[in-house]
Amino acid sequence: MNEIGVSEEEIFTLLDNAKKKDFRYQRVLSSMCTYPHEIAVKAHMQFIESNMGDFGLFRGTHEMEKEIILMLGEIYGCSSVEGYLTTGGTESNIQAVRAMRNFSRDKGSYDSSKVRPNIVVPASAHFSFDKISDILDVDVRKADLDNDMKVSVPSMESLIDENTVGLVAIAGSTEFGQVDPIVEISELAISRSLPLHIDAAFGGFILPFLPVKYKFDFSLPGITSIAVDPHKMGLSTIPSGVLLFRDFEYINHLRVHAPYLTVDTQYTLTGTRSGGAVAATYAVMMFLGKKGYTEVVNKCMELTRYLVKKVQSIGIQPAIDPVMNVVTLYVPHPTSLRTRLCREYDWHVSITQNPKALRIVIMPHLDFDIIDMFVDDLEKALKA
Amino acid sequence: MNEIGVSEEEIFTLLDNAKKKDFRYQRVLSSMCTYPHEIAVKAHMQFIESNMGDFGLFRGTHEMEKEIILMLGEIYGCSSVEGYLTTGGTESNIQAVRAMRNFSRDKGSYDSSKVRPNIVVPASAHFSFDKISDILDVDVRKADLDNDMKVSVPSMESLIDENTVGLVAIAGSTEFGQVDPIVEISELAISRSLPLHIDAAFGGFILPFLPVKYKFDFSLPGITSIAVDPHKMGLSTIPSGVLLFRDFEYINHLRVHAPYLTVDTQYTLTGTRSGGAVAATYAVMMFLGKKGYTEVVNKCMELTRYLVKKVQSIGIQPAIDPVMNVVTLYVPHPTSLRTRLCREYDWHVSITQNPKALRIVIMPHLDFDIIDMFVDDLEKALKA
Repeated sequence: MNEIGVSEEEIFTLLDNAKKKDFRYQRVLSSMCTYPHEIAVKAHMQFIESNMGDFGLFRGTHEMEKEIILMLGEIYGCSSVEGYLTTGGTESNIQAVRAMRNFSRDKGSYDSSKVRPNIVVPASAHFSFDKISDILDVDVRKADLDNDMKVSVPSMESLIDENTVGLVAIAGSTEFGQVDPIVEISELAISRSLPLHIDAAFGGFILPFLPVKYKFDFSLPGITSIAVDPHKMGLSTIPSGVLLFRDFEYINHLRVHAPYLTVDTQYTLTGTRSGGAVAATYAVMMFLGKKGYTEVVNKCMELTRYLVKKVQSIGIQPAIDPVMNVVTLYVPHPTSLRTRLCREYDWHVSITQNPKALRIVIMPHLDFDIIDMFVDDLEKALKA
Repeated sequence: MNEIGVSEEEIFTLLDNAKKKDFRYQRVLSSMCTYPHEIAVKAHMQFIESNMGDFGLFRGTHEMEKEIILMLGEIYGCSSVEGYLTTGGTESNIQAVRAMRNFSRDKGSYDSSKVRPNIVVPASAHFSFDKISDILDVDVRKADLDNDMKVSVPSMESLIDENTVGLVAIAGSTEFGQVDPIVEISELAISRSLPLHIDAAFGGFILPFLPVKYKFDFSLPGITSIAVDPHKMGLSTIPSGVLLFRDFEYINHLRVHAPYLTVDTQYTLTGTRSGGAVAATYAVMMFLGKKGYTEVVNKCMELTRYLVKKVQSIGIQPAIDPVMNVVTLYVPHPTSLRTRLCREYDWHVSITQNPKALRIVIMPHLDFDIIDMFVDDLEKALKA
């Protein structure tokens, strides 16, 4: 650190230079994040010093947090919903699995000194479940997918044993944007008396606003918790994740005693939490309403269909028919094509693992012109 | 959620109303958070969409993150330092203990199917260590404190056994602002070949800038990792924590494979991470420099001494002679006094657990006038 600080002018020259090295989202077709809505940014600023780690001091911000939970509970079919704002899908998933594990452990369903508990997840689960396995010391069993990249329910069922503490299904997989057969998985969870967590980090702000209605929420009785990220398709600021539980039954198994705060126990993963992100999420949800989010989703889906049609016209087929705004394309040598698109054309896409395909996420920062430019460059890169 | 969104004007009326219910920091004497510096807020805004979860897309922000790590490494006596920006002390502590546990497990030091590993921490450790015990399934053994609320090194030593995977010491305890005898604990760690994590979440932006020099950093050879929170005394925005390791030896045991990103592995706890907070921390550290932070710390320490002198003049004694800007006061019936100060006088203080004392954190948002008003009200509340 410098002995004497530098001037404000110098600081902002340094920041401007850093900004130039960040890719603009207009060149990014691989991220599930985007520019936050300007209402979200203004709200974040107004509450930037607010700390939800001790929400007794920030009662106004905390009321907004409770409102967010209730608004999401309402669109997800559960008026008794409980939950809190997390830093994003990874934290939400960690906490959901921790609640399952602790619930089973606390009621003596397995002997934690002898066996390692397990959860059953789709093979398409986000890589945060590998972190979760390591962090929580839980075996993560991965069920097979069908040809549409949805999890096979018989495969899930075959992996359940007496040490299984819960199931996970996905509403909007990271790689393919696919939705698992959640109605059947909810029935499986009930029949085996297991909690079921839905990872809707990406899909949670898409599925309720699509014309085709997928069942993925608390209206299915087997579902105990849902993860959804306002900082993805919710257009809020980072870090805005939400973890929802049907009620307090599972949350109570996350509590630890919290001295020196205005509250007695804490069930969150982190301590200090951004009140700015709470205000941002509240503001953008109130500003857009269902109509606003439906427009955002419609636009992304229109672009998605446009992209698929354009690539089909140059002989490229999608790996699955897009359910949401994720397009995966069968191309020759996807890994080297991805590198070429990055280095020679400044397009940032990603690739799926199995099957290998080029992966493009159609976020609200994209438009028809960008898709046109991208497909032109893709065509050139394919011929190179 | 409303069908149709509400107007921007209505949103900001709602936000203004929420703001009025949040306590102003000028009435908060219990928090280790404060108003972020205006330079930090401006920088946060400029990078609000930046996501360190996929830092290959945000290379400029990531360079700032690396600069922060190097600046802290320099003031903490380690040029080889590695690390990243976390959401705060709790995440930093989770990850430090996870690294210790995994390091021991991966080299086969304990049989994870048979024994529960343990760590030894001071009894004054932050309550996040109770979360850590639950999350990571690690036994957290708490060593006794001496009369000055520093950990007893013989007590720590007596708790170490063949399943101990690491030690923790505190540089600025949450309750008393005390610094453990870290020179001796570093020697103990070396003699027992154990990693040593320092929780300097609060003290890390105080101790280097005090006239009295406490040894707590990588200049002591036994220390493997340090947690420090720029969003506390560093005057950055929430969520800004930092976890530093002496080198990659331990970090490597946190890695999981990360598909569909620009990087191959991820060693952070969360996925998406705030690039805004990275820019904020970089900007305020560059702007203040060592001189600026020394002034901030001097001001807080001057107010601390002023408060102690004032309360002594009305017959109240501190529980320990303050090492940093935390004052703990022996008062009759601290719990009910705290409630009275809150309800009747709008002052928000906290209490320590053992011994019970009134706890006041002197953050940069306080001044002499506020201290005068508080002590006047404290005197009235004591007589009531």
